[in-house]
Amino acid sequence: MANLSPDQLHSLLCDTFVRCNTSKSNADSVASALLAAELAGQTGHGLRRVASYSAQSQSGKVDGNAVPVAQKVAAATLKVDAANGFAYPALDLIQDQLPVMARECGIALAGVSRSHHCGVAGVVVEKLANAGLVAMLFANTPGAMAPWGGNKALFGTNPIAFAAPIAQGEPIVIDVSLSKVARGKIMAAKQKGEPIPEGWALGPDGEPVTDAETALKGTMVPLGDAKGTALALMVELMAASLIGANTADKASSFFDAEGPSPGVGQTLIAIDPLKIGGPDVMDRFAAMAQSIGDQSGARVPGHRRQQLRQQLTQDGITVDDDLLKDIENLGR
Amino acid sequence: MANLSPDQLHSLLCDTFVRCNTSKSNADSVASALLAAELAGQTGHGLRRVASYSAQSQSGKVDGNAVPVAQKVAAATLKVDAANGFAYPALDLIQDQLPVMARECGIALAGVSRSHHCGVAGVVVEKLANAGLVAMLFANTPGAMAPWGGNKALFGTNPIAFAAPIAQGEPIVIDVSLSKVARGKIMAAKQKGEPIPEGWALGPDGEPVTDAETALKGTMVPLGDAKGTALALMVELMAASLIGANTADKASSFFDAEGPSPGVGQTLIAIDPLKIGGPDVMDRFAAMAQSIGDQSGARVPGHRRQQLRQQLTQDGITVDDDLLKDIENLGR
Repeated sequence: MANLSPDQLHSLLCDTFVRCNTSKSNADSVASALLAAELAGQTGHGLRRVASYSAQSQSGKVDGNAVPVAQKVAAATLKVDAANGFAYPALDLIQDQLPVMARECGIALAGVSRSHHCGVAGVVVEKLANAGLVAMLFANTPGAMAPWGGNKALFGTNPIAFAAPIAQGEPIVIDVSLSKVARGKIMAAKQKGEPIPEGWALGPDGEPVTDAETALKGTMVPLGDAKGTALALMVELMAASLIGANTADKASSFFDAEGPSPGVGQTLIAIDPLKIGGPDVMDRFAAMAQSIGDQSGARVPGHRRQQLRQQLTQDGITVDDDLLKDIENLGR
Repeated sequence: MANLSPDQLHSLLCDTFVRCNTSKSNADSVASALLAAELAGQTGHGLRRVASYSAQSQSGKVDGNAVPVAQKVAAATLKVDAANGFAYPALDLIQDQLPVMARECGIALAGVSRSHHCGVAGVVVEKLANAGLVAMLFANTPGAMAPWGGNKALFGTNPIAFAAPIAQGEPIVIDVSLSKVARGKIMAAKQKGEPIPEGWALGPDGEPVTDAETALKGTMVPLGDAKGTALALMVELMAASLIGANTADKASSFFDAEGPSPGVGQTLIAIDPLKIGGPDVMDRFAAMAQSIGDQSGARVPGHRRQQLRQQLTQDGITVDDDLLKDIENLGR
């Protein structure tokens, strides 16, 4: 096991992506996002993606040298073209421009098309909350869930993320993907040759299955059944149909290096809470966090990740030797 | 059983509310909303509320003569004070003003404080979709759900509603309250003296219960467990904390006529899809609706309500004789 500081890990990732046909500026942005995922304890969106990302920029499925373009199409609306590159450089562009628009108009929207995997959705909105804004993110992902009662995947696992800044301390950060369980859990069961519990997934015929392999050929069950599917449709409409990105059924895999770019979409909404809420608004957000934290057994969403980040920033990030070696060898 | 046309029912309700200490203009607005709920088949938000609403305007818990005030606080932000009256007149004010702001800026937000029960959330967003806008509504309700792991209700059942206009035909309308089942189902079980299934509610100690009476003293289980509670928190922050409305734990009942006004909040977001999405955006929404409708067993959210409305508008609304007599006697 190696132990790396956040800066060391960032440099390692940056160099790796540059070796793998990615511009310096894009590599910096992607490295920061993967590091943030690791620091949030979301390792499935962190170092484990490096090999797949690198393969995609090497094959050209992702354009590592893409330059995202943001165009202000109305006073509170920013249209962003990720240009079939990674999502993160486009999302970073939004972090620069959207707050200015939100502070002017009270609310502003950015839509990113021709995009890719946006990583930990909570990280994106948390950044905006750290700039004093309430933020909401809708992201679609390749087809994973069918409309309720159907059997063809029209929606991804489609996260909604939300963050609100609080008076003193770290923001409240909500990050919910709309499948009942993560697809990774089914992949893990398949690898171990174990069955999955009923209620996680449906087979290609739309019937419940417990065989992991059949489940991966079928669709995921949404959280909260019909209601969750309706929310997944909302995310799909917001993140893809609204802005002209590929819908889930047309998006290629975030993992393999073949085929066209996924071309998915992300829509961000930023709200200046001072405009609608007045000077006490962040105290009210803080009071809500306090009321939750005061109940034994309950937890303020986002706080566990924030504590982990603080700890890992201090102690360093432990990386498996094999994984580290694999990363160091990419593009050589 | 009586059969009334929508116009007859509207007149009946209007006259009733006017007799019960409500201004003509507010009565008109409330009557339209209750009629819309009936036409949507959401009878729990329709005629069954008339007696309770009337009692509240007679006792002064709701100010039937309130005049809601809308103030544009930024180019895309509308602050609305429902002035402890019914929610509907305030929401109607938004229907007039928010579309103009959304078309100018691409997106606009309205927050309503000192508000009351907003009825069928889907109806509110559907109206904006009929004006060509994508709309989202967040509403909080009196305390019903605890943070995950806790036992004190900090959130209401807190609906999220969303609507998107489609090229030709009726909008897609999503309307999801975040409790696993409606509180009305538990009230019905209590009246019948029947137990409720495990998983619907928790007792005052935070433990699962099957006794309906104990359940009503405790909290509702959210859809999708921890994830659903996180979404309920998001709605609470958006609808109440953001705009300075009463949070769920401080809101009085929507039903009885005692105590102060509920003072809850509603936040509406309207998006001009043409600005961010270009001229084909409503075709893309239509294509998504089509893809859902094409799957046997699946249904486009909102379409069942729309069909019912069409049918009831044509055939008239059947009203139970006792209920009709009760309504006719209110305020005499």
